[in-house]
Amino acid sequence: MRAEIITIGDELLIGQVVDTNSAWMAERLNEVGIELYQITSVHDTREHIIAALDEAFRRVDIVLTTGGLGPTNDDITKQVLCDYFGTHLIESASVRAHIEQLYAERPDVLNRLTATQWLVPESAEILPNRVGSAPLMLFRQGSQLLAAMPGVPYEMKIAMEEQILPRLARPTEHIIHKTLQVNGIPESALAILLEDFERNMPPYVRLAYLPKDGVIRLRLSAYGRATEDEMQTLFDQLRHLTRDYRIADTDEPIEVLVAKRLKETGATIATAESCTGGKLAALLNRHPGSSAFYMGSVVAYDNAVKRNVLGVRADDLDQYGAVSEPVVRQMAESVRALMHTDYAIATSGIAGPDGGTPDKPVGTVWMAWATPHGTTARCFRLGKLREQITDRACTAALINLLKIIQ
Amino acid sequence: MRAEIITIGDELLIGQVVDTNSAWMAERLNEVGIELYQITSVHDTREHIIAALDEAFRRVDIVLTTGGLGPTNDDITKQVLCDYFGTHLIESASVRAHIEQLYAERPDVLNRLTATQWLVPESAEILPNRVGSAPLMLFRQGSQLLAAMPGVPYEMKIAMEEQILPRLARPTEHIIHKTLQVNGIPESALAILLEDFERNMPPYVRLAYLPKDGVIRLRLSAYGRATEDEMQTLFDQLRHLTRDYRIADTDEPIEVLVAKRLKETGATIATAESCTGGKLAALLNRHPGSSAFYMGSVVAYDNAVKRNVLGVRADDLDQYGAVSEPVVRQMAESVRALMHTDYAIATSGIAGPDGGTPDKPVGTVWMAWATPHGTTARCFRLGKLREQITDRACTAALINLLKIIQ
Repeated sequence: MRAEIITIGDELLIGQVVDTNSAWMAERLNEVGIELYQITSVHDTREHIIAALDEAFRRVDIVLTTGGLGPTNDDITKQVLCDYFGTHLIESASVRAHIEQLYAERPDVLNRLTATQWLVPESAEILPNRVGSAPLMLFRQGSQLLAAMPGVPYEMKIAMEEQILPRLARPTEHIIHKTLQVNGIPESALAILLEDFERNMPPYVRLAYLPKDGVIRLRLSAYGRATEDEMQTLFDQLRHLTRDYRIADTDEPIEVLVAKRLKETGATIATAESCTGGKLAALLNRHPGSSAFYMGSVVAYDNAVKRNVLGVRADDLDQYGAVSEPVVRQMAESVRALMHTDYAIATSGIAGPDGGTPDKPVGTVWMAWATPHGTTARCFRLGKLREQITDRACTAALINLLKIIQ
Repeated sequence: MRAEIITIGDELLIGQVVDTNSAWMAERLNEVGIELYQITSVHDTREHIIAALDEAFRRVDIVLTTGGLGPTNDDITKQVLCDYFGTHLIESASVRAHIEQLYAERPDVLNRLTATQWLVPESAEILPNRVGSAPLMLFRQGSQLLAAMPGVPYEMKIAMEEQILPRLARPTEHIIHKTLQVNGIPESALAILLEDFERNMPPYVRLAYLPKDGVIRLRLSAYGRATEDEMQTLFDQLRHLTRDYRIADTDEPIEVLVAKRLKETGATIATAESCTGGKLAALLNRHPGSSAFYMGSVVAYDNAVKRNVLGVRADDLDQYGAVSEPVVRQMAESVRALMHTDYAIATSGIAGPDGGTPDKPVGTVWMAWATPHGTTARCFRLGKLREQITDRACTAALINLLKIIQ
């Protein structure tokens, strides 16, 4: 069974908004066995929306739209869908009651524009949107189905989880994806290592390489024809072949793998960050439950903070520079002592665009890992662009920590 | 002049990767006066890529593709483009020389799969990719043009900036977007405030509302027919009408507005973060030049860190709880003193999913701003979902700081 997503909004096509919705929806659709065939982003214009609907329904039976359901004039999705499905707007007493209750304490929201939100297409099934005013709409025509949702990510997510996904017919075939992650081998060398494996794969199984920030995710995919046992056998072969580089047998982000391992062992962690500037801290506490292992961080961006808060020796800062082994070692050990943790990570590097030297070009990052059994440090060269350098530094810091705690 | 983007890769359609490329490309295209008409994400299959190319070239004259140019078997874009444009692969001496030089110190990368990267379509113009091995390809057919780029974001960005954009014909018409940002008014109330303005706008000008994290971006757009003067007059009217809520006259992110203001006045800042966990720090040093004003942060996730590193009184933590006015005031003042800055922001809240109480439900966030003229504090209710709460907290913290320093 196949679906398509149509995201509606000029903001996507002029670059004011990154479409994070589609990836989230794609993942959830795959989990329930529905293949997402295409994603299309279109303008808030009648002709464009209708053309995209026509094309999508020629390819698939399920179309999910996001966006264009707000109360303002630039939001036209509801009216266009009425025209497309040959229906018209009527007042919904239940949507009205919901909106009046949702904004009971906000008279400034309960105005005549918000009142247009309780007008709904007569022929559509209206599903409750418990976190917003835009009604969720389900249109059915023969075997085809269209679900229209708001583009606000958290409204869309609740709509999908609670209302849309449970109403999509369960497919009889399975989609199976199995992903492992490797580190420390170039993509092309990995592909050569796996050449025989790829040649011998059944034709209905695909292998994909997804390199990012120094990690390559290897994904085996089968749509329909492969059994779980068969895929597990292939995956085990892949695990064996990549054993020297493998860091995980799942698609979970590195910070989740680290969190799991720390929770299992009851260990705690802190970070002392210069070039990563809090990004490593934010990664470690991004997911629920992080207070069990994550204590805190010092972001020592300025050298005075390295000296005064982390007690890095001024002599070492002068002699070796802030991006150096002695400095990251002291940063890691100091924050570990300050926050009474089992582990600590320190980063100091040149994220650019300025500050590079011939000896330490932009992209040079020193890191240290302080543990109950001593401290290790290592220097990396992580690219040329600010965001790339800091992202890769976080990944490298966590991969190395994972190796230490495993 | 119109363009479309086709992003190629199963990873986008199973949700393993969020497409951040398209928004970046969209913004750059708009800046040079090219309207991005549609974005389409397709699978790594021959039929799907060819169908998308056919459809796109029926609508526009410029097609930009990303993805599928790696050396592994799942990357098929180059071969499919050869078939589509009726050409075949030949060895390129210049691409070969570039790749051999790029990986001179990486014999593990210079293998026979990487060698396939210097095979290029004979009829395409090959542009240099100075940061990777995948050649950039430009196909021309009559008035139509296709540019193929890697999907790796930083390779794509350098390709667009240095090679593709300069080769796209300059349109004779202008696209004008003008954006301002407001805060503190619901979207529907804003639309009512602007009803007369919208009614009186010329028909070729559009107004869009983009709410996110408590800020609404209001965008005036005109494709071709409006003059700069005319748009400026409309924009000035909009500025006047929104004067009570307006926080910026540009589309720049709040952290950039804060950075500019701090640099102008030579002031410095630090943060003390509990619930935002380093996200606020990472925002403040995300852009180049942040070392001029951003000194550092203490992420005091655990209460012991609040006591021991920031000197928050244990009595106050016990009596009022970590999410309270006395605690955030002490956090802000303490980090301001510790890091010798002019300003400091502190956050402490319940990001959930656990930890909420009837008095302080999930989404409750206390914040304080310490300044040379004293400290202010405020409590917010910022939603129900972890990521939404911490994102909104960062935005609220920076908006309030901006109001203080302006």
